[in-house]
Amino acid sequence: MKSTLLSRQDLDFLLFDWLLVDELTGRDRFSEHSRETFSDTLDLCEQLASRYFAPHNKKSDAHEPTFDGTKVTIIDEVKEALAACADAELIGMAMDYSLGGAQLPATVAQAGFAWLFAANVSTAGYPMLTMANANLLAKFGSEEQITAFVKPMIAGRFFGTMCLSETQAGSSLADITTRANRCADGTFRLFGSKMWISGGEHELTENIVHLVLAKIPDGPAGTKGISLFIVPKYLVNPDGTLGERNDVVLAGLNHKMGYRGITNTVLNFGEGVHQPGGEPGAIGYLVGDEHRGLTYMFHMMNEARLGVGMGAIALGYTGYLKSLEYARSRPQGRPATAKDPAAPQVAIIEHADVKRMLLAQKSYVEGALALALYCARLVDVQNTAGSDDEREHATALLDILTPIAKSWPSQWCLAANDLAIQVHGGYGYTREYDVEQHYRDNRLNPIHEGTHGIQSLDLLGRKVVQRNGASLAALHGAMSECTGAAHRAGGELADMAARLDAVVQRLVAVTAGMFAAGDIDAALANSAIYLEAFGHVVIAWIWLEQLLAAGGRAGDFFDGKRQAARYFFRYELPKTGPQLDLLESLDRTTLEMRPEWF
Amino acid sequence: MKSTLLSRQDLDFLLFDWLLVDELTGRDRFSEHSRETFSDTLDLCEQLASRYFAPHNKKSDAHEPTFDGTKVTIIDEVKEALAACADAELIGMAMDYSLGGAQLPATVAQAGFAWLFAANVSTAGYPMLTMANANLLAKFGSEEQITAFVKPMIAGRFFGTMCLSETQAGSSLADITTRANRCADGTFRLFGSKMWISGGEHELTENIVHLVLAKIPDGPAGTKGISLFIVPKYLVNPDGTLGERNDVVLAGLNHKMGYRGITNTVLNFGEGVHQPGGEPGAIGYLVGDEHRGLTYMFHMMNEARLGVGMGAIALGYTGYLKSLEYARSRPQGRPATAKDPAAPQVAIIEHADVKRMLLAQKSYVEGALALALYCARLVDVQNTAGSDDEREHATALLDILTPIAKSWPSQWCLAANDLAIQVHGGYGYTREYDVEQHYRDNRLNPIHEGTHGIQSLDLLGRKVVQRNGASLAALHGAMSECTGAAHRAGGELADMAARLDAVVQRLVAVTAGMFAAGDIDAALANSAIYLEAFGHVVIAWIWLEQLLAAGGRAGDFFDGKRQAARYFFRYELPKTGPQLDLLESLDRTTLEMRPEWF
Repeated sequence: MKSTLLSRQDLDFLLFDWLLVDELTGRDRFSEHSRETFSDTLDLCEQLASRYFAPHNKKSDAHEPTFDGTKVTIIDEVKEALAACADAELIGMAMDYSLGGAQLPATVAQAGFAWLFAANVSTAGYPMLTMANANLLAKFGSEEQITAFVKPMIAGRFFGTMCLSETQAGSSLADITTRANRCADGTFRLFGSKMWISGGEHELTENIVHLVLAKIPDGPAGTKGISLFIVPKYLVNPDGTLGERNDVVLAGLNHKMGYRGITNTVLNFGEGVHQPGGEPGAIGYLVGDEHRGLTYMFHMMNEARLGVGMGAIALGYTGYLKSLEYARSRPQGRPATAKDPAAPQVAIIEHADVKRMLLAQKSYVEGALALALYCARLVDVQNTAGSDDEREHATALLDILTPIAKSWPSQWCLAANDLAIQVHGGYGYTREYDVEQHYRDNRLNPIHEGTHGIQSLDLLGRKVVQRNGASLAALHGAMSECTGAAHRAGGELADMAARLDAVVQRLVAVTAGMFAAGDIDAALANSAIYLEAFGHVVIAWIWLEQLLAAGGRAGDFFDGKRQAARYFFRYELPKTGPQLDLLESLDRTTLEMRPEWF
Repeated sequence: MKSTLLSRQDLDFLLFDWLLVDELTGRDRFSEHSRETFSDTLDLCEQLASRYFAPHNKKSDAHEPTFDGTKVTIIDEVKEALAACADAELIGMAMDYSLGGAQLPATVAQAGFAWLFAANVSTAGYPMLTMANANLLAKFGSEEQITAFVKPMIAGRFFGTMCLSETQAGSSLADITTRANRCADGTFRLFGSKMWISGGEHELTENIVHLVLAKIPDGPAGTKGISLFIVPKYLVNPDGTLGERNDVVLAGLNHKMGYRGITNTVLNFGEGVHQPGGEPGAIGYLVGDEHRGLTYMFHMMNEARLGVGMGAIALGYTGYLKSLEYARSRPQGRPATAKDPAAPQVAIIEHADVKRMLLAQKSYVEGALALALYCARLVDVQNTAGSDDEREHATALLDILTPIAKSWPSQWCLAANDLAIQVHGGYGYTREYDVEQHYRDNRLNPIHEGTHGIQSLDLLGRKVVQRNGASLAALHGAMSECTGAAHRAGGELADMAARLDAVVQRLVAVTAGMFAAGDIDAALANSAIYLEAFGHVVIAWIWLEQLLAAGGRAGDFFDGKRQAARYFFRYELPKTGPQLDLLESLDRTTLEMRPEWF
């Protein structure tokens, strides 16, 4: 039976036919790997997902973690799934052998991890955060920190978190007030409170490694005065055994619409509940240099943003497959033009409007998955390419694509879940079917790791203009290469390339025009619309890339790819027309709206 | 303190300044009313909503009805609220004096009832269904049926349901299999099962009046063989007292994503649990003539569709007001071009992107509310106009606007709830705030009372073409009258009128073109896109109507109306461009997609 989590055929096509991931085995870092080890990884992830993650997805939604004031209780299946994940050495998939990792390409690791997201996005959140945390420390932490914290995380004995937001400072990190006082021995004592911390408290692992943003007194104001600290739940002795309880304690759990399976917490630091070393304050260890915390954290955040995008995609993808299965098996009604009431009912997949809803989902989730894996492939180039030029080019592309890879799936794979419910009719609205939970879970993704608004300012206010527009130029170049190939292929591909070229040229011209007027407020006022238009252009390009990779091959799979691409070019890409008109006009409707007029 | 349920100022503007509802007091039916009785009704509904309905909205979501196999348990607050509703004689608001009603115009009744929807859409569902049920029976029932069932419903002693769907026949009523066998005494015995019955079982009232669609053996196939029956939970004796328990029993409750406060049920008829009169089968009383059940039911369904639209609007409206309140009070970040980290944070309502999200909500919910009240006003014209021409004209408009009044709020006021969450950031995703529940509740509305797909086929396949296009012509006429007035007013209004004229002309031309080719499959393939484009044109017209009613008046309220209208014309109406392009091309992408390609 075909999985309703993801499509292995699609993954294989994207990884091996399009992104040519097996070519990576020619690079030193991946020389011990082969197409077989890549395939084995995907097999393993699918098995873990089906056997350990999917079965408790509903249960962990209906029985969310509880806190009795001293202890958090989580259903047993979560711990079992995560133990299986650790036993399979998944957390270190992409990390160095020297740290206990498997040194797989990021592309393969991301594709593998997508199975866990599709099966249970909440439970998969624990290892996802742990991987991002371990990656950051592996890059910026000291030898001692790596030994004490990274290796146990890769082994699955510790889990990690990222502690950025505070109740008064969500999107505005400049305004955090958690402080870290220097101690004579080089450690710090932290005082403050953090909000929205996923995985912030549990008993799933021996220890929890919090990465905490805080301000050292007398540092610069705003984001330039933020430093990064490791604050473990339990101190770690030099021999690796656990020491005293640190003063980081759970203040309470947040109760959410979805993503209910993972604890989401308010954490208090240095409230005096514990006094490690007999002194007040939570003990923290500075990562890297003082006041550079946000720079380090952005390394983790960029990875987490790609992870959020992949989570959104996986939810969209499994919802699509489930609604597809439903549409194939549910008889209802007759063709619009054949109303003989005595004729048997047809499966709803025969109705044009149901096909529209399935095609829309297919074009969203397959397009988004392809983009996510393209970005993961750029991470591999960034990490292993032979020349500086190649690495810089990959970085430029990754910089400008990251806000899209985070926000586009958050919006459109949620839209896919909405359509998956609609295909199910009334049944889709009940908790007996899976799709309503996917819809609730997915609604988080446009909010966390930088809201849509934040992503849009990152794209338009930073990425598009950075390095004199070099990132945008790199992307434009990549798109032109693709459309060039499509023009050479001729026929329908050339037609699609012409359409895409026209929109890309307009996007580039409109972008230039927005800044030419020198009115930054007006240029940024409609950044969210810009993000949407930009995202649709990117996904159209990614669809054309897929068709080029499909070439002239026959078969249902390739016919389906071609029809989904047509759908995207005919139904979706034209939506950018009015958006670009609005942006070109530097519309001031929102700027001119006064708060008292609401 | 201003209500966060609805805006009374907006209601007063729409009812009295625009729709001139007080002019209705010149008609016989409403001659005992006055602007004061209308205002008192709105006051009363607001008070009931605030005092009895809103306080348990969260509680009835968290503690949904339970069924232990014999009895349904519902939190006490629901019964208290509904008793207050009955005491205030709200259920009969718009019904005849002779039936115990208050003979208020539908426009006022709908506006009043919107307060209950905004406060608690689940609890308000019971009287809403009861009103629709009573209205149908008052029109098509016999004297005896009216005495036995309608009057107790208006008094709030009985509640009503509508029993259409079956598990194998959701949108396809032709395929229902519930059968009704004729008995010698003129009554019928029903056997079968009904699905998705809201309010299908409870102990909130003495009795429940089910209106059930069933087939009489040997009748015509398909929808032409459907008859309508009253099946009371308890039989009613000639003296009005309750008699034997009828054989309609609860098979189970459906557990939904939202709308959790109202029981949604599977009901079994004639399973033999009870044997009224010692015979098997649930006793049913035929309404009107045999085989005309669907025609009667459409009377109720049209009313229920307007009610669903109003429910969606009320949820959108209260979400908007709550996110507005949050945006005014939440400090976060600084203007994009003023990044001094030492400056105090500003309220998020100052950010252009937040204003965009609030303006979008305002344009959706106020536009939709105006449309809903415009339709209610048409109901009043239909019921009380002096001339046949006037009544027919109102019917033509109401026919074509009903699918829009149902579907547009279901889509866009849900989109408003999505934005309300986004304005709240992470807090909006938690169950501590109201907006996540509104979002979950509102997601039902594109499904029940005819899905989006069904509404789109009703609009394009029936309403647009009916009576040789007379309904479309009537709507076109109403829009032209509006734009004519706007042209005469000149200035900005004339500009907006010109833009609307252009889109309307294109819509009419595209509509004609779609059928000109004679390919019905192709014409209907993109009916859902047609529904969307049509809806946006209607709402743009309704916004222009509002601006005409506002005239040149100064003040925050009117400035806000003007800015929301600008938003709709600049950000929303242009979306119809690519939609009309697609429709004009008679795109066959969905028709050509083969099930095996998915």
